[in-house]
Amino acid sequence: MIKKIESQGYYIEIGNHAESSLQQLLDVDFAQAKKVIIVDENTHDNCLEALLTHYEALKEAEVILLPPGEENKVMEICFQVWEALTEYKIGRRDLIINLGGGVITDLGGFIASIYKRGVQFINMPTSLLAMVDASSGGKTGIDLGPFKNQLGLFAYPICTIIDPGFLQTLPDNEKVWGKAEMLKHGLIADKAHWDTLKEKDVHDITLEDIATSASIKNNIVLKDPKEENERKKLNFGHTIAHALEAYFLDKSPLPHGYAVALGLLVESKISIDLGLLSKEEYYEIEHFILQQYDKIDNISTIGETLLGFMQNDKKREGQEYNFTLLNTIGQSSINHTVTEEVILEALKVIDTQF
Amino acid sequence: MIKKIESQGYYIEIGNHAESSLQQLLDVDFAQAKKVIIVDENTHDNCLEALLTHYEALKEAEVILLPPGEENKVMEICFQVWEALTEYKIGRRDLIINLGGGVITDLGGFIASIYKRGVQFINMPTSLLAMVDASSGGKTGIDLGPFKNQLGLFAYPICTIIDPGFLQTLPDNEKVWGKAEMLKHGLIADKAHWDTLKEKDVHDITLEDIATSASIKNNIVLKDPKEENERKKLNFGHTIAHALEAYFLDKSPLPHGYAVALGLLVESKISIDLGLLSKEEYYEIEHFILQQYDKIDNISTIGETLLGFMQNDKKREGQEYNFTLLNTIGQSSINHTVTEEVILEALKVIDTQF
Repeated sequence: MIKKIESQGYYIEIGNHAESSLQQLLDVDFAQAKKVIIVDENTHDNCLEALLTHYEALKEAEVILLPPGEENKVMEICFQVWEALTEYKIGRRDLIINLGGGVITDLGGFIASIYKRGVQFINMPTSLLAMVDASSGGKTGIDLGPFKNQLGLFAYPICTIIDPGFLQTLPDNEKVWGKAEMLKHGLIADKAHWDTLKEKDVHDITLEDIATSASIKNNIVLKDPKEENERKKLNFGHTIAHALEAYFLDKSPLPHGYAVALGLLVESKISIDLGLLSKEEYYEIEHFILQQYDKIDNISTIGETLLGFMQNDKKREGQEYNFTLLNTIGQSSINHTVTEEVILEALKVIDTQF
Repeated sequence: MIKKIESQGYYIEIGNHAESSLQQLLDVDFAQAKKVIIVDENTHDNCLEALLTHYEALKEAEVILLPPGEENKVMEICFQVWEALTEYKIGRRDLIINLGGGVITDLGGFIASIYKRGVQFINMPTSLLAMVDASSGGKTGIDLGPFKNQLGLFAYPICTIIDPGFLQTLPDNEKVWGKAEMLKHGLIADKAHWDTLKEKDVHDITLEDIATSASIKNNIVLKDPKEENERKKLNFGHTIAHALEAYFLDKSPLPHGYAVALGLLVESKISIDLGLLSKEEYYEIEHFILQQYDKIDNISTIGETLLGFMQNDKKREGQEYNFTLLNTIGQSSINHTVTEEVILEALKVIDTQF
């Protein structure tokens, strides 16, 4: 059974890929097109075979293999892919399939949308994080030095095909990290989703849970595709997360989901400090996050450096630090101005020294 | 007096910039925004002063100076500009002004649209070619190796402000090259425009001529912004032109307008060879183009190489060479399949040996 969600001129399907619209797309809509599959080393080894075996139309596909990890979401890699696409004489009517986690769908969507002013692409997320977040919503992009997604554009796939079967190929810690984006969806917009997830080990996450999480995001995106207002809710946790990722990028890169989990906690702390969230709910969040995600050593000593990264955050408007904060679990509000003092104080909650 | 043309969610103004909407945009809409002006060495020396003197709001603007020429419409240059924008802490609400010819408006539009998923920009074309073509229509892009505009996206400025006064700073040969795009507009859609231009030296081109040419393009773009059908008419002359430019890029780069002029002639020749255009009109075109634009030595000997470049042309669909051709002067039609033999034969008309 396939669950189908309609989005911004494209659609999301959740279920076994063999029952999805992929077969029809390959055999009918793109029968004459050349096909390219972009993978990283992990999905090359663990996921690609399933597609090549199942779809006759993919047997002749060009496979572009990229090194894994956020540190490779950079222009140099794009450049190599564009040169390969040129060598394969890929044209505007051909098809790119992005098979991978958030790095591959962010990067592959960016590559496809810029090449010859736009080649069509399909996202097939293989990580929990990409399934519930990165593979839908139209944000594509790459990093510029330490700045996350500093270069990019809004561009939409033909469809996103989410097959939870690929999660069996995923290490447990990757699932725990990906779950952070699901928790975020619960915190900002759906208390029941948060309550469900609280009770569940990552092995127990179902197709329905993934569909719920993807739907929460989709409903917000449809109201405000270009992030003028409502969509900023999805940034909850991310101002802090992106600063943490920027800091650690050239040291020992933090997984995005892990950084988001810590960001959710710090920004929940800011929410009580600004008198929005109740202490009771804050402690519920703190308890649950710290049960699953480790604090970091000496984080408070780098507070000023983290503020520096936040000053170049895409979400920033004018000279102030702009945050999405929680009112209660399941309800958030945007455009809160927060002082440096409050940010520095809140960072202590993820510091092992405190 | 300002002539105003409405386009795809933005507008084009033609006339003295001091009477345009620029003052209001700077002082009201973007009063709080940081301003960046992108120039090349030519517009830095010849055009920038006029703006800095006239607009108080631009006195504090960051000026980004780029090397001139098509060979600099590349990713390395974009990268340097993105790093500068990051250093200046330019955010989504700030403003970029592209002051220059087609290279600056193509490149600056691309840079602005990718940075932080899109910063707003204004195009102020200073060359005849950019005024009548490159600065409107939403095509932004850069080259990848020898392939023209291989990377890019459709992205629209807030407005394009065309001040023909800037043409006084332009060398005569630049005007002759830019005139080629005006001739194209006449050939594909407006015989009267062609007839007017035939009689005129480039010094006699008026604001009205520029407005007519920009309007012809705009009317076509509005019918088909993403180049699914009608807009392909604007590609007349360009399949040949881009192949010529690709070939000469690492030797002695051809000015785009000059390559277009030769492309118009070759593709007019293809149009009679396919039985579309009358011989009489073809000879009128040949006579007029060769009066103003020189043939090239030994062009026929590189025919196969040029075909190779055409195979990676963005406009190509499937395995065939797809051309826009002329039916009569003032009327064109799209999607003609042309054989290699016909292309090679037609190339002789721009070869000094014939």
